[in-house]
Amino acid sequence: MNTLVDAGFSPRREGFAPQPLIEALLSILPAHCVLHREEDTRPYECDGLSLYRALPAVVALPEDEAQVRAIMQLCKRMNVPIVARGAGTGLSGGAMPHAQGVLLGLSKLNRIKRIDPAGGTAVVEPGVRNLAISEAAAPYGLYYAPDPSSQIACSIGGNVAENSGGVHCLKYGLTVHNVLRVRVVTIDGEIVELGSEAPDAPGLDLLSVFVGSEGMLGVVTEITVKLIPSPACAQVVMASFASVEAAGNAVTQIIAAGLIPAGLEMMDRQAVHMVEPFVQAGYDLQAQAILLCEADGTPQEVAHEVAMMEAVFKRAGATSLQVSGSEAERLRFWAGRKNAFPAAGRVSPDYYCMDGTIPRRHLARVLGAIEQMEDDFGLRCANVFHAGDGNLHPLILFDSNKPDEVERAEKFGAAILELCVQVGGTVTGEHGVGMEKINQMCVQFSRDELDAFLAVKRAFDPPGLLNPEKVIPTLARCAEYGKMHVHAGEMRFPDLARF
Amino acid sequence: MNTLVDAGFSPRREGFAPQPLIEALLSILPAHCVLHREEDTRPYECDGLSLYRALPAVVALPEDEAQVRAIMQLCKRMNVPIVARGAGTGLSGGAMPHAQGVLLGLSKLNRIKRIDPAGGTAVVEPGVRNLAISEAAAPYGLYYAPDPSSQIACSIGGNVAENSGGVHCLKYGLTVHNVLRVRVVTIDGEIVELGSEAPDAPGLDLLSVFVGSEGMLGVVTEITVKLIPSPACAQVVMASFASVEAAGNAVTQIIAAGLIPAGLEMMDRQAVHMVEPFVQAGYDLQAQAILLCEADGTPQEVAHEVAMMEAVFKRAGATSLQVSGSEAERLRFWAGRKNAFPAAGRVSPDYYCMDGTIPRRHLARVLGAIEQMEDDFGLRCANVFHAGDGNLHPLILFDSNKPDEVERAEKFGAAILELCVQVGGTVTGEHGVGMEKINQMCVQFSRDELDAFLAVKRAFDPPGLLNPEKVIPTLARCAEYGKMHVHAGEMRFPDLARF
Repeated sequence: MNTLVDAGFSPRREGFAPQPLIEALLSILPAHCVLHREEDTRPYECDGLSLYRALPAVVALPEDEAQVRAIMQLCKRMNVPIVARGAGTGLSGGAMPHAQGVLLGLSKLNRIKRIDPAGGTAVVEPGVRNLAISEAAAPYGLYYAPDPSSQIACSIGGNVAENSGGVHCLKYGLTVHNVLRVRVVTIDGEIVELGSEAPDAPGLDLLSVFVGSEGMLGVVTEITVKLIPSPACAQVVMASFASVEAAGNAVTQIIAAGLIPAGLEMMDRQAVHMVEPFVQAGYDLQAQAILLCEADGTPQEVAHEVAMMEAVFKRAGATSLQVSGSEAERLRFWAGRKNAFPAAGRVSPDYYCMDGTIPRRHLARVLGAIEQMEDDFGLRCANVFHAGDGNLHPLILFDSNKPDEVERAEKFGAAILELCVQVGGTVTGEHGVGMEKINQMCVQFSRDELDAFLAVKRAFDPPGLLNPEKVIPTLARCAEYGKMHVHAGEMRFPDLARF
Repeated sequence: MNTLVDAGFSPRREGFAPQPLIEALLSILPAHCVLHREEDTRPYECDGLSLYRALPAVVALPEDEAQVRAIMQLCKRMNVPIVARGAGTGLSGGAMPHAQGVLLGLSKLNRIKRIDPAGGTAVVEPGVRNLAISEAAAPYGLYYAPDPSSQIACSIGGNVAENSGGVHCLKYGLTVHNVLRVRVVTIDGEIVELGSEAPDAPGLDLLSVFVGSEGMLGVVTEITVKLIPSPACAQVVMASFASVEAAGNAVTQIIAAGLIPAGLEMMDRQAVHMVEPFVQAGYDLQAQAILLCEADGTPQEVAHEVAMMEAVFKRAGATSLQVSGSEAERLRFWAGRKNAFPAAGRVSPDYYCMDGTIPRRHLARVLGAIEQMEDDFGLRCANVFHAGDGNLHPLILFDSNKPDEVERAEKFGAAILELCVQVGGTVTGEHGVGMEKINQMCVQFSRDELDAFLAVKRAFDPPGLLNPEKVIPTLARCAEYGKMHVHAGEMRFPDLARF
């Protein structure tokens, strides 16, 4: 249901002959681990952001760390780009192949090596699915907290690359807060271990810089994650509001009351009307905005928190309030939120899911501005998002059969992200920069800041072979994009100053 | 009360003449911001680790960011080392001056620039004292959570450099989890802002790598910290155990029960007997180990958590249990823990406070090994520490008037840290590496891992002028130290394998 437009990125260099590379890979890998015929490499041409596509020169599917090392050493020797890929569910084109490069698929490194229930840790390979970790930990009453929407399919290696989030991240943190150690193969084929099972590793915190580095610094071959006790119970409070502003203020008041909900999500009227006919979750069609606020823990904790949540929402002017009375009802309340993307597919031929983040206090203002942009760009936009984190996911609805709508959707998306920067937020909350937001990085950061990123990138990858041309824009690209760095919280764009 | 031994580190290079440097600094700073007479620079010769001392060539005390930039540019031009210093309360020699360098004191950058109660943030300069932030936030019902023992005196800039912890870090995180953004002057005099008020900044997470980088990457001039609501109440459960092992297992069971105490501290028998005569906290002198376990939050939450804590401790074999019945009693229970260092000073001429971290499950085993080392090294050691984090603070008691005791204390300390590495822990929990633990870094990390640190250091500071000769050991230093890297959790030292 995503758009299927070939952006023509990274075309094959004229005269590029993949054969020597394929032969070299076949000399270090079993034949079944090297894919090079077009029909075999086609499934790897894009990730979840199908707007950008490229066929890789060759796909390598190593079965163990030694093979990963050999691939890295080979590519360095032959000066060949490497793009690592987990399950390919990413939404920013981070795993889009390089036309002259190796697509390094990690799906065969899929063992859960160890679970330590007393220590609350699991040691897994990068190809293990996010949900499979929680399934393996369930017999011990434990689970892995970060839960991206794609958790059935996405891999923990991809989660590390993107620093993935999810509904539970407000309370339990992003991937970076739930990974204790990673084992990494560098571009030289060396092994380094970053982080530690103990809190605060000595020296520089290279674990945090590696998590979320989108495949630019090395390839992870082993990950030690934190497991936490599964909560005994959970309940969700669903509150309606007569305006987006009132709902935004209620979010601020929940946090100000010292509550840290297990999830705090908002849907605007457009989103509610999009999903309700699809899922029949019982959403209030009169509301301008709905909040879903979850408490988890022991029954006493949940009862206490739910009472506090209800009190805050009442004070904040909720027009209607419901508390889930059973696990079935709790799941029904969440069903609309979780099915927003498929629901968008029912009402629009295509949609473009954005991922900006803003300080919570600006929620109402930014949502108001997005509404105004719907007129400006002539496209509808539904908002379904992690309100507690200030992490917006505007869904821009369009039809890719009308070519100018693709362009308008892209411009609409860019305008939303640049507004996020203006109010002191960022151009991505949990989906990464990848291909998609590389131009907006020019707005987010000063040249000196981008140079600091580049210097660290070069420290790990001097030849620049790991996921090249993504995440960090060059000086030339920013000059071409023609928009300047906005200092957080400052308004420098006259054309957006009206919001 | 720390030892007063000059280790002779970093002696003045023969023929080094500080005059041109002093004159150059006087050309860019007011005269009262440049200290160069010996009696003026003497107070800066060491930080809280007085084992290592050096007089700096000159002390610069800038009054604003523009002066910091000018100093950095000057030092780069003149190829002069720079050591930044906050309040000088650090315990690993991180702020020890370089004899041919500038000691850059940040105490005059001490403004609280902004407090945003709705957003839960404060923007402060690096010289602001840790506790001053909470004092300024108190009228809004907010506070800054990380609370190192030195919080009355230590500066937030120093906390950022060391990634400082404290009693509350188990629940509320280290400095890195409570800092949202830093403004940094690079060695080139450029300004970069790292991090964001929104969760998860795009690009590489350079904020996390900067926090805890011990002055090696840049000089911070502005810090945006997170403020959280002050808990309505707090209670502490004090439990006695008949063995250190039983207390260690109780810690594991608290965490396994899904509790995250606001503090979870252990004192062994030696520590209890050291502090009780000094503070009369009412500690159980029969116990082999005492745990202090705090709950904070709303009265209902606290009551619920305290009941769970009591139940866990009973099941874990506590020989006695007390719950603080009033705020005065709560503070009295904590008084012994908080006064352990002064108490050590009463019973021993000198002490050496270590800072290793281990996976919690090895608490009993490591404490047993330390007890055995007391015989081996002929020195006593009291243990007072953040048990919930697995962060040990062994206090080695010695007398510096007996020269061989200094050497034995240092060797004892090194043996403890290397044992921490062997069981999968680290050589520092919250005090940093600095001068003190640079040799143990050779044990903690492989050469490839140290090279990754060096590469990132060089990315920020190509000429290597920022806090040189600290934190990251050279190949030559590791060769001289003669101990090899231990893979986490593996036992490779035959001489320590008996523990």
